[in-house]
Amino acid sequence: MPSADEPILLTPGPLTTSRTVKEAMLRDMGSRDRAFLALDAEVRRRLVALVGGEDSHVCVPIQGSGTFAVEAMLGTLVPPDGKLLVLANGAYGERMVRIAAIHRRRCFVLRTPEDVPNDVVALAQTLERDPEITHVAAVHCETTSGLLNPIERIAEVVARHRRRLLVDAMSSFGALPLDARATPFEALAASANKCLEGVPGVAFVIVRRDGLLAAEGNAPSLCLDLFDQYAAMEKTGQWRFTPPTHVIAALSQALREHEREGGVSGRGARYRANCRLLVDGMREMGFVPLLPDELQAPIIVTFRMPADPRFVFEEFYDRLRARGFAIYPGKLTVAPSFRIGCIGHIGAAEMRAALAAIREVLAEMGVASGRPA
Amino acid sequence: MPSADEPILLTPGPLTTSRTVKEAMLRDMGSRDRAFLALDAEVRRRLVALVGGEDSHVCVPIQGSGTFAVEAMLGTLVPPDGKLLVLANGAYGERMVRIAAIHRRRCFVLRTPEDVPNDVVALAQTLERDPEITHVAAVHCETTSGLLNPIERIAEVVARHRRRLLVDAMSSFGALPLDARATPFEALAASANKCLEGVPGVAFVIVRRDGLLAAEGNAPSLCLDLFDQYAAMEKTGQWRFTPPTHVIAALSQALREHEREGGVSGRGARYRANCRLLVDGMREMGFVPLLPDELQAPIIVTFRMPADPRFVFEEFYDRLRARGFAIYPGKLTVAPSFRIGCIGHIGAAEMRAALAAIREVLAEMGVASGRPA
Repeated sequence: MPSADEPILLTPGPLTTSRTVKEAMLRDMGSRDRAFLALDAEVRRRLVALVGGEDSHVCVPIQGSGTFAVEAMLGTLVPPDGKLLVLANGAYGERMVRIAAIHRRRCFVLRTPEDVPNDVVALAQTLERDPEITHVAAVHCETTSGLLNPIERIAEVVARHRRRLLVDAMSSFGALPLDARATPFEALAASANKCLEGVPGVAFVIVRRDGLLAAEGNAPSLCLDLFDQYAAMEKTGQWRFTPPTHVIAALSQALREHEREGGVSGRGARYRANCRLLVDGMREMGFVPLLPDELQAPIIVTFRMPADPRFVFEEFYDRLRARGFAIYPGKLTVAPSFRIGCIGHIGAAEMRAALAAIREVLAEMGVASGRPA
Repeated sequence: MPSADEPILLTPGPLTTSRTVKEAMLRDMGSRDRAFLALDAEVRRRLVALVGGEDSHVCVPIQGSGTFAVEAMLGTLVPPDGKLLVLANGAYGERMVRIAAIHRRRCFVLRTPEDVPNDVVALAQTLERDPEITHVAAVHCETTSGLLNPIERIAEVVARHRRRLLVDAMSSFGALPLDARATPFEALAASANKCLEGVPGVAFVIVRRDGLLAAEGNAPSLCLDLFDQYAAMEKTGQWRFTPPTHVIAALSQALREHEREGGVSGRGARYRANCRLLVDGMREMGFVPLLPDELQAPIIVTFRMPADPRFVFEEFYDRLRARGFAIYPGKLTVAPSFRIGCIGHIGAAEMRAALAAIREVLAEMGVASGRPA
């Protein structure tokens, strides 16, 4: 049961994990000990298999949050004389632009508004016009809005123009299908604590082995050098620097639970049902999602801020929080909004309980409808 | 009781932690939720207080292993036109040299052998001779050998020459005293899973606030930019990118247990007793520590490899491991060696049990004495 002490996290992560995932952390493991090395190797194998990359790709884990993996991916794979094209329609696309600037890599940005998918036609035209572009970076599901970008069509265009695709798959990995055999990508970055339902502290890049082996010396960082991390792991089976052993043990357990649920399709089906319940229930109360259903990924939903002046977001948040539900602030630049996540170890019962709590809170606040201006 | 399934970790970390530290991870917290933010702020306050830095220094946490904090410290604080002098007598000093090279910072190295402390006279002469040196980096306790470097005298010389001292305090922080009011340092880097007895996954830099505020734009990385991390935290109280919430909850509990033990002096006293028992017991079996007692930090002890050809380290490791003790390979370049740690949630009973197990294993292997060549 949700409580103020242990609320259900309706956020894009950290999220609610199963008791068994957390209990996997009740054990200290030596980072150079065989028991840990076997568990770690198994985790990396499972992650590659989730995108059908066994014959082509390898998994290179990186300590830290998802952004650490994104920075490692860009820093290692885009060489100093490369040029990056970023498809941006939210904060995570813009973050890649910022990383490229810090790394002093040439970078061109193709922007669409936060509620409009990446423009595949403009992408093709740009690649046609600019032969200097070596890499294209895209965000599979933009957590800023909750929007699903057309990654398959993007991959097709990038492959046709013989450039390399780098995917921020942070909030889609493990719940939305992406297959290396059907959707060519050079690398993707993701993390343990999104749809895989692990705990935060480790992220990873799944990268084409041949591409990685050609990337020696590119990275402007020691810690965030995927080539160096991979080369050391191949040589010794060990991490270069202390891995978060407890976090990785939790991810190992989370991957077993992911498999038991039916893998990507099973996990995705539960999240789609959560999202359906959430959107329908919120619409009944007058709330309006930012996105039309066909652009909405079943990960996190952005709602426009209600017009009723009695709706003050901080109060709404606190009252829901006291009932055991933690929601998420908005991140849109175009309009006031807030977000509610559909991911984590939650199902129909939790979504219904959250909707009931929202209904009660609106009544307490004297808000008749969630309708925006 | 130690077992093959849950061995006692006689390593420099990850190490054996208390049950209560691990149990603090049995709770999911929202990273932007007030409950987590309060806990996080308290952790940062406690860490600064451990070195008496309340009036001068701030704590900037960084996701990842200790090396992530070291790289963030060097990358943020040594400006592009700065010049770094590294005092090196082991792998961790050399790692800072490598980071400076990757960051394309000018760097001069003052080396001593792995069993010889940093040379304070040569340091003074070098600073005298080379006015371009802006920063000096030193390793408080070199885990490669277990040697304690003379950090107070180094700090005194660096301050007298008006340069800035950056300390890798990874394996000393929390057990060996270092006081910002008595020992001037610009910054130190340390981690949760050494003498603080937390779990791995978060590290931190304690840095002079004025120095940090002057370091905007230096870092060649987004994730490892201490200025940006600090500025965002000051503005919002939040981490820029998902923090390892469970790992930080464990650190919070670990800091409470550290305080209950009597803080740095209580923790240090237990480790000194562990180290004493270990060294005495090993000497009785003929083993010879690399270092004389006066250079030995009570953190990890390097033993020279025994001369007896029946002593095969891998077999020794496996047999001890089967009895529930995980020791650590050597890292010396000068001589074959292995290491045994004195840190973690262990005391006299565990050290005696480890010694008894070593005695049994030697007998099984037919090794009469641990005496080196």
